[in-house]
Amino acid sequence: MNTSIPVKLIENSGGLGDCPGYKTAGVAGDIREIGDTERLDVALFTADTPCSAAGVFTLNDVCAAPVKVCKTILEKSADNIAGCISNSGNANAATGEQGMIDAKQMSALAQLETGIGAPFLVCSTGRIGRKLPMQKIESGIAAAAQALSNEPQASFNAADAILTSDTRRKVATARFKVDGQTITVSGMAKGAGMIEPDMATMLAYVVTDLQANGALLKAVLKEACDRTFNCISVDGDMSTNDTVLLFANGHSGIAADTTPELLSAFKDAVFQVCDIMAEKIVGDGEKVTKLVELIVQGCQTDADAEKVARAVGNSLLVKTSWYGSDPNWGRLADAAGYARVGLDETCFDIHYDTCPALIGGRPQDEKLQEWKDIVAKNRFRITLNLNQGNSSFRLLTSDLSEAYVNFNKSE
Amino acid sequence: MNTSIPVKLIENSGGLGDCPGYKTAGVAGDIREIGDTERLDVALFTADTPCSAAGVFTLNDVCAAPVKVCKTILEKSADNIAGCISNSGNANAATGEQGMIDAKQMSALAQLETGIGAPFLVCSTGRIGRKLPMQKIESGIAAAAQALSNEPQASFNAADAILTSDTRRKVATARFKVDGQTITVSGMAKGAGMIEPDMATMLAYVVTDLQANGALLKAVLKEACDRTFNCISVDGDMSTNDTVLLFANGHSGIAADTTPELLSAFKDAVFQVCDIMAEKIVGDGEKVTKLVELIVQGCQTDADAEKVARAVGNSLLVKTSWYGSDPNWGRLADAAGYARVGLDETCFDIHYDTCPALIGGRPQDEKLQEWKDIVAKNRFRITLNLNQGNSSFRLLTSDLSEAYVNFNKSE
Repeated sequence: MNTSIPVKLIENSGGLGDCPGYKTAGVAGDIREIGDTERLDVALFTADTPCSAAGVFTLNDVCAAPVKVCKTILEKSADNIAGCISNSGNANAATGEQGMIDAKQMSALAQLETGIGAPFLVCSTGRIGRKLPMQKIESGIAAAAQALSNEPQASFNAADAILTSDTRRKVATARFKVDGQTITVSGMAKGAGMIEPDMATMLAYVVTDLQANGALLKAVLKEACDRTFNCISVDGDMSTNDTVLLFANGHSGIAADTTPELLSAFKDAVFQVCDIMAEKIVGDGEKVTKLVELIVQGCQTDADAEKVARAVGNSLLVKTSWYGSDPNWGRLADAAGYARVGLDETCFDIHYDTCPALIGGRPQDEKLQEWKDIVAKNRFRITLNLNQGNSSFRLLTSDLSEAYVNFNKSE
Repeated sequence: MNTSIPVKLIENSGGLGDCPGYKTAGVAGDIREIGDTERLDVALFTADTPCSAAGVFTLNDVCAAPVKVCKTILEKSADNIAGCISNSGNANAATGEQGMIDAKQMSALAQLETGIGAPFLVCSTGRIGRKLPMQKIESGIAAAAQALSNEPQASFNAADAILTSDTRRKVATARFKVDGQTITVSGMAKGAGMIEPDMATMLAYVVTDLQANGALLKAVLKEACDRTFNCISVDGDMSTNDTVLLFANGHSGIAADTTPELLSAFKDAVFQVCDIMAEKIVGDGEKVTKLVELIVQGCQTDADAEKVARAVGNSLLVKTSWYGSDPNWGRLADAAGYARVGLDETCFDIHYDTCPALIGGRPQDEKLQEWKDIVAKNRFRITLNLNQGNSSFRLLTSDLSEAYVNFNKSE
């Protein structure tokens, strides 16, 4: 008996505003302190009534003040959260004690300006090692609280206000029906790669109108992140601020774990929203020209498969060859070899899309033109099969362009 | 009582030819098969009487045929080696059974053409995944055997014939005296970074006129490599062909382990020759504009210190900031943090040369102009002190330029 509930991913997502029971805002606060009064850089969203939330955070030893503040708030109060206040332009990372004071102050100001009696989570993204301009932050939060609304434009403004070097807004929505009632899972994200002089930070926010406690949200979010945001790579650099948050306001009156089918649909919807946003992040990585789906199969363990995928996906030689549309399988084999999981080069297959490049270690040279045509596309798949076991790993990655180097060489 | 023997590093080295009892040759064999009859690409050297040898090789699972052949020869016959035959332009890697046949054939041809009754080691560097052009290899080896000589030009020719994307010949010599007699340790190497469509390969050959058996040479070479060639990084890609070989022909009539002082001087000379060649390899890395000496101190274990150094030294963000002369210590801290050795950002120091950038996690912003001046130089030192222990690691690394990406983007 298959009673699974179909989940529909919405192409033209309105972002967080698609989900009933949340208000959003995005305003220009000149957080970069360059006199730019047009660029949106303060994002605020609130649940109409305090909600539950969960987070997944960077594993970097150097972890930014807002990440620490989020963790503390979620430990104490995961089932009574007002929403989230974010800024771009300054990461509030490596800012010492003052950074902690400022991050807590951002959370407190959001509560003060909205008048909501529950704590706000807080995210920052941008330049590392500079103190937050707290006067500008304060004005920004006040303006954002005034602007809170459930109009579609407010949702787009919030999604734009978290962007740094991104060239495109990243939003996604998935919906499914329970007993005739529509349930929504919506998200907004900002991308990988770094900005101007700034570190990359990946931020993503996912909201739903189901009811769920923090513990359940945490389990669902962790599972989704492991299969999506943790399987992407642009440049192999892990940020100090990476944060993914999931909120549930219970606006639908339906609990996420009412039935196994409903819970499964919820998980699927969160996965789909995270997956499409992860793909958007890689596709909009800094100066990226190609999106590559790298599938490593036939390994003895999942960890081995991931090791091979990351060695290949982060190899400068491999990435530059993709940039040059060069089907250089020798570089793939070399990188797979230095992952040192015991690859045997005589029983090793490589495919570009479905076209064989190497079978049992033997080059299929007569297919050269086909390989070239595939690698010239702006999206393609490469499959490496070590033929040693049943474990696999899928990494969404990108090429490396001269423009990336130019973009990141200085402030 | 300090009886250590001073070792002198010779600035204007003549390469292998500096060492008595060896003959060298470098000839043009058109191994790239592009009709280039000028470019030297077959290198041969022999000891006047069969010598002892030892090798240190790539740890890549995908290891080239000549590496396998060298290992087998050294296992069977480390104390009876004729010399070494090398080619550039083709790596003979990922070439299956035919590759093994061809590598053995190269060794046999060197023996045939020189008439020396001992096996030759064999090295190849260049494009992966293409069969060796054996007719050209055969003519090249015949010509090289004819050209063998102890003239200085022959030694330079050999050093030039192993180069691929290198822009400069890499040779070094160290000398010391024992009982009034001069002992010589000489080397030639080719560099890191990759070439045109080719993989990087690091090759280095070191010869001495001391007498030493293969076991002793192996211990001395391993120790030197761990402190030199294993502490450099250009792009983090490990080649399929990396090889370092050490030869001792006993021409001086003096055994390397006659006294502890002599053995110590020998080790020091091998270290110095390897160290200067390692530095030359990084300085001539592909499209490198800056040489950076990265010192990680204050770690709990050597492995932790190495992990931090490699995370920082291989970070694209860090390398591009060096290229742009941007003293972006935030990127250094971020990369050090994602090495995940338990860095505490409140007791973490960073220095550019001797100028403090971060002390106990606090930026020394008043020194900004000094940092900028240092990072603008083409050689500088960065010290990261985690203040958690007594272990350290020194990595010689480089910046990453747009020209690198352009250089490696296609065949």
